[in-house]
Amino acid sequence: MLRDPDDLPAAIRDPAPYRALTRPRGARWIEVLDQRALPHARVSIRVNDAGMAAQAIRGMWIRGAPLIGVVGAYGLALALDADATDAALDRAHAALDATRPTAVNLRWALDRVRDAVRPLPSDARADAAWREADMMAAEDIALCRAIGEHGLAILTGVAARHSGPVNVMTHCNAGALGTCGWGTATAPVFLAHAAGIPVHVFVSETRPRLQGAALTAWELAERGVPHTVFVDGASGHLLARGGVDVVFVGADRVAANGDVCNKIGTYDKALAARDNGVPFYAAVPSPTLDFALAGGAAIPIEMRDGAEVLRVAGRDDYGQLAHVSIAHHGAKAVNPAFDVTPARLVTGLVTERGVVDASTAALAAAFPERVRG
Amino acid sequence: MLRDPDDLPAAIRDPAPYRALTRPRGARWIEVLDQRALPHARVSIRVNDAGMAAQAIRGMWIRGAPLIGVVGAYGLALALDADATDAALDRAHAALDATRPTAVNLRWALDRVRDAVRPLPSDARADAAWREADMMAAEDIALCRAIGEHGLAILTGVAARHSGPVNVMTHCNAGALGTCGWGTATAPVFLAHAAGIPVHVFVSETRPRLQGAALTAWELAERGVPHTVFVDGASGHLLARGGVDVVFVGADRVAANGDVCNKIGTYDKALAARDNGVPFYAAVPSPTLDFALAGGAAIPIEMRDGAEVLRVAGRDDYGQLAHVSIAHHGAKAVNPAFDVTPARLVTGLVTERGVVDASTAALAAAFPERVRG
Repeated sequence: MLRDPDDLPAAIRDPAPYRALTRPRGARWIEVLDQRALPHARVSIRVNDAGMAAQAIRGMWIRGAPLIGVVGAYGLALALDADATDAALDRAHAALDATRPTAVNLRWALDRVRDAVRPLPSDARADAAWREADMMAAEDIALCRAIGEHGLAILTGVAARHSGPVNVMTHCNAGALGTCGWGTATAPVFLAHAAGIPVHVFVSETRPRLQGAALTAWELAERGVPHTVFVDGASGHLLARGGVDVVFVGADRVAANGDVCNKIGTYDKALAARDNGVPFYAAVPSPTLDFALAGGAAIPIEMRDGAEVLRVAGRDDYGQLAHVSIAHHGAKAVNPAFDVTPARLVTGLVTERGVVDASTAALAAAFPERVRG
Repeated sequence: MLRDPDDLPAAIRDPAPYRALTRPRGARWIEVLDQRALPHARVSIRVNDAGMAAQAIRGMWIRGAPLIGVVGAYGLALALDADATDAALDRAHAALDATRPTAVNLRWALDRVRDAVRPLPSDARADAAWREADMMAAEDIALCRAIGEHGLAILTGVAARHSGPVNVMTHCNAGALGTCGWGTATAPVFLAHAAGIPVHVFVSETRPRLQGAALTAWELAERGVPHTVFVDGASGHLLARGGVDVVFVGADRVAANGDVCNKIGTYDKALAARDNGVPFYAAVPSPTLDFALAGGAAIPIEMRDGAEVLRVAGRDDYGQLAHVSIAHHGAKAVNPAFDVTPARLVTGLVTERGVVDASTAALAAAFPERVRG
């Protein structure tokens, strides 16, 4: 049984020269890579208590549905180190759960830790929570690796059909920075690159927070994978004329019928992929599946501050983090953080159990233990 | 016969408190509002010779297909003031025509001025060119006003069907800043607002150059029209769930079959509009029609410098124009400036002669004099 990421077989571990989340063996804290500073600076922050863990999630020091889940789990462990009573456990669960509404992994992870420690005497709870969180981190890496293998088969199929690089389009960051390793949508790309299959990634910049340009492009550069950034609005044009072979995106929550909730702009790409006959896959580790929701219409869409749209963050000409305002003084913006891609537009869901049709029947058949009676 | 914008009836003139282009009566120069500085500062530049006119177009001091055409026409007049020989006329025509490849209005305007002055003795050519350019400026205002009336009927129809404001989505800037007045896609909005019809505009920011956030939102604010900025990637979500009644966009070139070439990101919106049953109209003055092209596939798509994607321009916290870099050092970007929306996705083309189906037959019937034998 996996205990923590160090127990993983070497072939499963992500060899990347960076990690979004680290817990040195035995430490009672975690360290996260502050994604607000990337790609311009590497800033690691030690997270010492549950309040900081909540702030790391809410403030988007870290993001990505799988990583949010694991950091939430460690947040509960940190809370229990301070106070292991039932009341404290419930308070920490509620506080962490309230940080971000859309990704289902967070609730899933918090419930799992709570349910694991609740039956235990209070002096055993904190250790058990740390173990559970470690296991979830290790499992996340293994799930991403399995998704990578199944996605790799898709890329290998493309490579067999034409010469030249396989052109993958992706959106936002569904990379190792959004998970404990490998990423979800990027895992097939990293494995293909390691296997010597020529691959090139079209990276959608992903306004407003630019996770594509700032994070995904940086990850690809760190690993030597050829890539090209483009503005979100060029998705349709590139899918029509850019030679894109396949679209791989991540997911923040997938309903029982295969509707995919993911970063704003995903639905637009799915429409354009369909209009041009380009396969569109969402990479989905099973903790992202929400069998309690019949369809995507009920998924809560986080509405973020319009200032994220109106003030663009980046590095100024002196290398300092800076913002520029892009509209007139007093302008207002609406800032939905996610959208829902209907299952009918999804070629398949790449899960750790293989590529599954985006349908109620296929998902239930692939994950029968998750379907409610 | 119209001679210049001052000859227009008062009801046709755009009452806006700004103008993209001014030629004081009798002046042998024009003044343009430098759109690179908007919305943060109003900078007017006097354009004194044909080289500056070319630079104003190429450098995007001014933009928008109709305005590019008229500034090109004045550029020829400026060239003829300096040298009215056949050779100079041809040189200036070629230099201005080479500034930007996609908008067809530029070639149309340059050909019109050249053909008008070529038969004349050289000492009469410059005056004739100024007159022709003045007429084109006046005609542009009148065309936009007519488009506004036809589009207004669409908005009036929406207003009759539900209470609350009419929600219009637009993209880029197809406003008065892209024309000599009123704009194309914005003309119906401005007329509706003036008529007391409650209207609200969803403004797509339009990366990479942010003409929506920087220019369209500013125009709407200057005229008191309620509006909300959003990132391009939120188009699909807002069309699915945002209560958008109608999409109005401009066009840089429309082929004989109704395929619409417009700012990158337009095609994505058309797909999402269709998927959600929202009418999608392109506002198209007839100089934007290119009957020489059977379909949109042959329209040359301008590929601009990737630096426009990787460095975002705006106003810093000290009020100065500044840039921030959004990706890792050495990142590359692809930057197609336009895309083609297939006619099948276009509900109608709002022209000065009414709303025309986006089809070869309907366009030929509406503009029979333009169809080649």
